[in-house]
Amino acid sequence: MTRPRIVIVGAGFGGLSAAVGLAGADADVTVVDRRNYHLFQPLLYQVATAGLSPAQIASPIRAILRRAGNVRVVLGKVSGIDRERRVVKVDDRPGLAYDHLILATGARHAYFGHDDWETVAPGLKTIDDATGIRRRILTAFEHAEAADSPEARRRLLTFVVIGGGPTGVEMAGAIAELAHAALRHDFRTVDPREARIVLVEAGGRLLASFPEALSKAARDSLERLHVEVRLGAPVSACDADGVTIGEQRLDAATIVWAAGVAASPAARWLGVEADRVGRVKVAPDLSLPAHPEIFVIGDTAHVVDATGQPLPGLAPVAKQQGAYVARLLRSRIAGHQAPPPFRYRSYGTMATIGRRSAVADFGWVRFDGTVAWLLWGAVHISFLIGFRNRLVVILDWLWSYVTFQSGARLITGPGSS
Amino acid sequence: MTRPRIVIVGAGFGGLSAAVGLAGADADVTVVDRRNYHLFQPLLYQVATAGLSPAQIASPIRAILRRAGNVRVVLGKVSGIDRERRVVKVDDRPGLAYDHLILATGARHAYFGHDDWETVAPGLKTIDDATGIRRRILTAFEHAEAADSPEARRRLLTFVVIGGGPTGVEMAGAIAELAHAALRHDFRTVDPREARIVLVEAGGRLLASFPEALSKAARDSLERLHVEVRLGAPVSACDADGVTIGEQRLDAATIVWAAGVAASPAARWLGVEADRVGRVKVAPDLSLPAHPEIFVIGDTAHVVDATGQPLPGLAPVAKQQGAYVARLLRSRIAGHQAPPPFRYRSYGTMATIGRRSAVADFGWVRFDGTVAWLLWGAVHISFLIGFRNRLVVILDWLWSYVTFQSGARLITGPGSS
Repeated sequence: MTRPRIVIVGAGFGGLSAAVGLAGADADVTVVDRRNYHLFQPLLYQVATAGLSPAQIASPIRAILRRAGNVRVVLGKVSGIDRERRVVKVDDRPGLAYDHLILATGARHAYFGHDDWETVAPGLKTIDDATGIRRRILTAFEHAEAADSPEARRRLLTFVVIGGGPTGVEMAGAIAELAHAALRHDFRTVDPREARIVLVEAGGRLLASFPEALSKAARDSLERLHVEVRLGAPVSACDADGVTIGEQRLDAATIVWAAGVAASPAARWLGVEADRVGRVKVAPDLSLPAHPEIFVIGDTAHVVDATGQPLPGLAPVAKQQGAYVARLLRSRIAGHQAPPPFRYRSYGTMATIGRRSAVADFGWVRFDGTVAWLLWGAVHISFLIGFRNRLVVILDWLWSYVTFQSGARLITGPGSS
Repeated sequence: MTRPRIVIVGAGFGGLSAAVGLAGADADVTVVDRRNYHLFQPLLYQVATAGLSPAQIASPIRAILRRAGNVRVVLGKVSGIDRERRVVKVDDRPGLAYDHLILATGARHAYFGHDDWETVAPGLKTIDDATGIRRRILTAFEHAEAADSPEARRRLLTFVVIGGGPTGVEMAGAIAELAHAALRHDFRTVDPREARIVLVEAGGRLLASFPEALSKAARDSLERLHVEVRLGAPVSACDADGVTIGEQRLDAATIVWAAGVAASPAARWLGVEADRVGRVKVAPDLSLPAHPEIFVIGDTAHVVDATGQPLPGLAPVAKQQGAYVARLLRSRIAGHQAPPPFRYRSYGTMATIGRRSAVADFGWVRFDGTVAWLLWGAVHISFLIGFRNRLVVILDWLWSYVTFQSGARLITGPGSS
């Protein structure tokens, strides 16, 4: 019998965890990704707000999987899947044949019927997204310094973050700290502390997936950082000059979208039904009903927990699912019994707001403030890939903490030369 | 009497050194640059070859000049100068009026009548140039891994560096080390050590500004790193598929231009005569003949030394000229006697080739090998701006030295998503 061929699409938390779990297995594994790096997305907002450099939170996929001799990495964009012939179409190449397929293609930000908002209110998913948002934020301060009217200056110094989930809270807090600390003494005409940072959330509270007490703590912390929090405030329009919240107009030069994500086109590739946000409904063992050779994991999968609630789009969920499918495939290849259905073990969730401020919910205990913040830092450092990245991020954080400076205040990319 | 207004165009080594020299002077100083950062260009080739991150060799101009209360920084692109009205035109704004003007606008790569070569053979001057070249180099290895014919693979694994000056030598050495060390175990189909790195120089030797013995040493070191050195080899054509050297065709997917630079358009702005490479001829005090209020320094200035030779386009020349003009203007504003004409003090020149290999020429002593390499590292670290950058670059270098890995192997930017 020939060795089974396993194709993994996507090298985010889920796909990478599956590949690591299959290292050394009796199978030929191919990982396909559009990018050459695995990105530690939980810290991406720090790249967007000039705190960290891209390379500090991204590692080449090949380098991570170097020692896995049975795993190869292909850089390419998947355009479709032929379920009958069991082939993944990559770019314009002949395609990758598989015996088992793992789809871990993640999610993109979604504008829910307002795709034209994307150019004015970019979301944060890739490194290029992050350096683009960084360029917008820093350029707004530069243009404010050169502005010739108070109205123009006010518009340039208004930053709107749409969406009060973890990403929105972290972005708003980080922009406020940039303005009030790192940039504070650098301008002559404007005072960066005049910057107005508005966090807009359509729902009734921030961090809706956290307990109410922590939502309140997050709001208080943000307000101490001079962030205006607007709850119950649905955005009805969005253009290059600002946003409209309900009926009220807010002029702003910089808008960041953190309001929603939708799954990648995996459901479309497979020709199967998707849930409201595009996720593929899978069986309890994460395989596609009637296709035991196809698995869908991470943000692309709709998996319900014991209470019937869909699992959230978090890194630990994706990682556990990747490890689970690797274990299942190893059993299947060895002819052993299949493991019991996937069950997510939650170790808690956290979000950071700013300097010495974060919220943490472990179910049995929940807290906020300095301790939560230190814990948040420790957890994120321990999950960063690569000894070098950990060390350099720790140093950058210590340096920023002591000096109130930020480490990567560069305006680069289109239009910056 | 009102305070004199001094405008400095460009925040490279020359302009920044002038601004630092004028900090606290009895004058209002404005620094204009197209970018928000000062770039440590001597290490830019390490960004292009995935060794360092952009933020490690670039610092925000505002942050560097934060404490200089009489200096303000303007982000903008200069489009011209009105010598009569004494105004610098910036973007579409009203313009900056000056009493004294310092032009330190540097140089760009030049293609000497072949401007169409720029898209296929990019040069290395800005951070976006560097991340663009990094993208091309890393993508070539990725495409080689997926190539379906030996010919295509050979073309994809051929890297041509045009120009045997310090930048060309450093680029060729760094690409060779990337292929032979950092990428060595990362591919399954191709062996990165099959990569062919060709350094092409039209003249008879490498590093023409160094003594002959060091040119020979550089060539030997490069050949030990498996770089093919082609001397007396003028490039006659250049396109997306390769280069033509004399009559000989060389298929190559990646071409880097390090063959020549030309000064920025300062001469055109001023409406004065330029030398062969676009530099403005200045008086011994670096001012424009008949315009004692206008100074030109750095790569944009044509200044001759005691032997009648024009000074080279090196960082120390620009820095000393910036400091000189600051001193001269301080004397002039105070009504003191002008300092004696500018004189460049050379402390030596260096170029690095690779791991434990460099050449150094101090006039009275010249050497190559490990000692030159250590010295090269020490000197470059000591001139890097910012304690944080120094520390992080040292750590990255140590890490790379010990592990043979490179720190920033990211494919980002246009076409990478």
